[in-house]
Amino acid sequence: MSKGVTPKSKNYSKWYTDVITKAELADYGPVKGTMIIRPYGYQIWENIKNIFDKKFKSTGHSNAYFPLFIPKSFLNKEAAHVKGFAKECAIVTHSRLKANENGKLIPDPDSKLEEEVIVRPTSETIIWSSYKKWINSYRDLPVLINQWANVVRWEMRTRLFLRTSEFLWQEGHTAHANKKEAVKETLKILDIYQNVIEKSMAIPVITGKKSESEKFAGAEDTYSIETMMGDKKALQAGTSHYLGQNFSKAFDVKFQDVDNTEKYVYATSWGVSTRLIGALIMAHGDDKGLRIPPDIAPIQVVIIPIYKTNEDYNSIKEYINPLIDDMQHNNVSYYFDNRNAVSPGFKFNEWEMKGVPLRIEVGMRDVGNKKIVMVRRDNAEKITCDYQKASSKITESLKSIQDNLYKQALDFREANTYNVSNYNEFQNIILKKGGFIRCGWDGSSETESLIKQDTGATIRCIIKKLDKTNIKCIYTQSLAKFEVIFSKAY
Amino acid sequence: MSKGVTPKSKNYSKWYTDVITKAELADYGPVKGTMIIRPYGYQIWENIKNIFDKKFKSTGHSNAYFPLFIPKSFLNKEAAHVKGFAKECAIVTHSRLKANENGKLIPDPDSKLEEEVIVRPTSETIIWSSYKKWINSYRDLPVLINQWANVVRWEMRTRLFLRTSEFLWQEGHTAHANKKEAVKETLKILDIYQNVIEKSMAIPVITGKKSESEKFAGAEDTYSIETMMGDKKALQAGTSHYLGQNFSKAFDVKFQDVDNTEKYVYATSWGVSTRLIGALIMAHGDDKGLRIPPDIAPIQVVIIPIYKTNEDYNSIKEYINPLIDDMQHNNVSYYFDNRNAVSPGFKFNEWEMKGVPLRIEVGMRDVGNKKIVMVRRDNAEKITCDYQKASSKITESLKSIQDNLYKQALDFREANTYNVSNYNEFQNIILKKGGFIRCGWDGSSETESLIKQDTGATIRCIIKKLDKTNIKCIYTQSLAKFEVIFSKAY
Repeated sequence: MSKGVTPKSKNYSKWYTDVITKAELADYGPVKGTMIIRPYGYQIWENIKNIFDKKFKSTGHSNAYFPLFIPKSFLNKEAAHVKGFAKECAIVTHSRLKANENGKLIPDPDSKLEEEVIVRPTSETIIWSSYKKWINSYRDLPVLINQWANVVRWEMRTRLFLRTSEFLWQEGHTAHANKKEAVKETLKILDIYQNVIEKSMAIPVITGKKSESEKFAGAEDTYSIETMMGDKKALQAGTSHYLGQNFSKAFDVKFQDVDNTEKYVYATSWGVSTRLIGALIMAHGDDKGLRIPPDIAPIQVVIIPIYKTNEDYNSIKEYINPLIDDMQHNNVSYYFDNRNAVSPGFKFNEWEMKGVPLRIEVGMRDVGNKKIVMVRRDNAEKITCDYQKASSKITESLKSIQDNLYKQALDFREANTYNVSNYNEFQNIILKKGGFIRCGWDGSSETESLIKQDTGATIRCIIKKLDKTNIKCIYTQSLAKFEVIFSKAY
Repeated sequence: MSKGVTPKSKNYSKWYTDVITKAELADYGPVKGTMIIRPYGYQIWENIKNIFDKKFKSTGHSNAYFPLFIPKSFLNKEAAHVKGFAKECAIVTHSRLKANENGKLIPDPDSKLEEEVIVRPTSETIIWSSYKKWINSYRDLPVLINQWANVVRWEMRTRLFLRTSEFLWQEGHTAHANKKEAVKETLKILDIYQNVIEKSMAIPVITGKKSESEKFAGAEDTYSIETMMGDKKALQAGTSHYLGQNFSKAFDVKFQDVDNTEKYVYATSWGVSTRLIGALIMAHGDDKGLRIPPDIAPIQVVIIPIYKTNEDYNSIKEYINPLIDDMQHNNVSYYFDNRNAVSPGFKFNEWEMKGVPLRIEVGMRDVGNKKIVMVRRDNAEKITCDYQKASSKITESLKSIQDNLYKQALDFREANTYNVSNYNEFQNIILKKGGFIRCGWDGSSETESLIKQDTGATIRCIIKKLDKTNIKCIYTQSLAKFEVIFSKAY
């Protein structure tokens, strides 16, 4: 804990891992690609989760829980879906271990399953097999269900929070009577995602539609939330899919409409995951460690007493107690760090590493002067104020830190986003400087693929359909159909 | 929904399943023994979960998340543990599906895992492999971690909520410097379990230690929470284990103590699961369906307008609105059921089935008389009160329903618990009447096993160690070492 992290500028990837380890957010699990989310990391996830959960509920969604195990045959029912997930799934084949002749534990051959089961990589198939039972009439619609769950995608190259074989997420699955409603739902959720990620996580986002090659396996349209990380690469922080009738047809889910005809149901699905913690680290972290926006910080204020004698400690405690009462009253989460075994300097570093937004340092001089000294994590600003003003100063500072973190991230993104019309410039930015490029695209998958091969950049999202403009495709120089964001991405 | 359930007296097991189906709590999943928890059932679970979560946090525990997948070899490290779980675990052997020559999906032989992984049946092994990394000194202790997770135990005879292959639970795993602290933790949690189940779920419990044959695979001592269901059988609603040094030795977790010597850590683990919803149904349900204690009810008050014309509906709505505002203000959860397509009678039955504690029926006569009519779900009592007293009457009634459900369950248990000293009487009660038997036991596993073979009854828990009494063992008539509860059980 006492040592710092590798500087961002030196080795971004090492910096990222160091922050996770030293801030005690997560560890790798013993099975390749799995992740242990430690209490401090999990508290951040709980805070993010609670904010989303309230928004989902206040827009009419209910939580439910569907099984972890999916029959192999289900995956096969939607053609694009199976193609997308068959190559990276955990397959359960036996239900019992036994000792072999050497005393080694092996899967008991007698327990081989008749049909293998898949550990869910996502739950469209199992959920739509239920919806078939629950939906008969237009009166049963819409169905607005969300679940908080773990899912498994067997990944080869894993990275804590960003890409792990198992991760935690929410997945919404809704059913509607018509296309218009389903599309509206898809965009409503995109809006909730944007709102929470910008307002609570202080990360600016760009929203738009995915190109054909990047959309979800089984979707008609995928919309995504794209964020810029500290190394100028993009991170997709959430997706909302309009699924059309693909899953209702695959699982034969029809309903009797008001006009008495039978119709296939329209669907959406959408999700955000523990990947958001990766986004948080990379959007706000610096060479001292994490910087957590106050709205989702497990601890908003840490109080560090500085003293030599027990008598001094008691005076400081007595001095600070009314302020702590005020914080409790104002729902400010705080931690009074009275550990004896470590020095104040050690504590400063530790809580900076953990990204606590505001630190109060209180010593005998402050007690004498009736002052409170606080230090902001976002900009290292030291604030000294009169004791009786401290409580409102804390609230005000937390608000200001929240705003400033967003502003810093937005300024950074703006400074690293380029309007480009020339492919040489495109290559130069992608390969040397990094950042987002806003440019024209002719809409062809081939173009997209050639650019990817050439530079490693992909279309993050389509931000505008072009009509009657003379914007050219960045690559082919033919007339562009869309304005898009290109970038390297996680 | 319109039809009732099979009467309890006619077929208890069918009644149980009917209630689950008709109250829309859960469904079986497509893979044998898995369960779909529907929104109404999941809301109950969320309410129970939130109460526990607050208690755990207020007693110093933090949530974390450990991986779903456990290396096969881990299970083998604690001898009793592997014996307990090897026979019922889901084993992942492959990580990819491919199409065979006939186009059928099969596990790709090239994706066979070097070491099979087990889907966690419980997380002691994976958690203690982490604790080895985290615990070095007495300063790192205690570690007080809980996780909310899904676990899998491959069950042959499954039953919704009571015994399913996958279920949701919380599992606490703590590490301590000495035995005294670990035992204290084990009992502290038992106390929390008792408190929540009695106070919030209104189910009376008996707590005690398990006999050797019934304790957790890997524990020194298992304490349990035993409840009586409507058919007089016992249901174990939660367990808290003192694990001694079994897992710290298996995973070599030592710490440097204050006296500078190295010692193995002492452990506990404890859990409650979605099984509690099964307990809820069977402790309180009646022939009209569920009866949910107000403290955990998703909807505490349902309001049903009774009207013929739109004009009447509007008058009723206007009349009831201030009362609804009051409910919101008082944190009473309510639902205004204004569906047009179904009759008030249908609604009465539906909400009774769903166990909503209090129903308000409001028609034009009430508007005229300035009265509010409410009906209690627990005892069908009809209460008419002046409009201005309705708000406080609601709060008072919810409190009274909560108390009465507990009292009814307690009276039922007391009426069906017998102090028995004669084995003929024991057989007669277990085999004919059903219920709990409080009696002496000589402490021998053989006696326990013979009684089980003879009657199907097991020791639910040891309630007292006997010393210097002349109480005899119910079976052998030798001097009893313990006073225990015998019963048939789920």
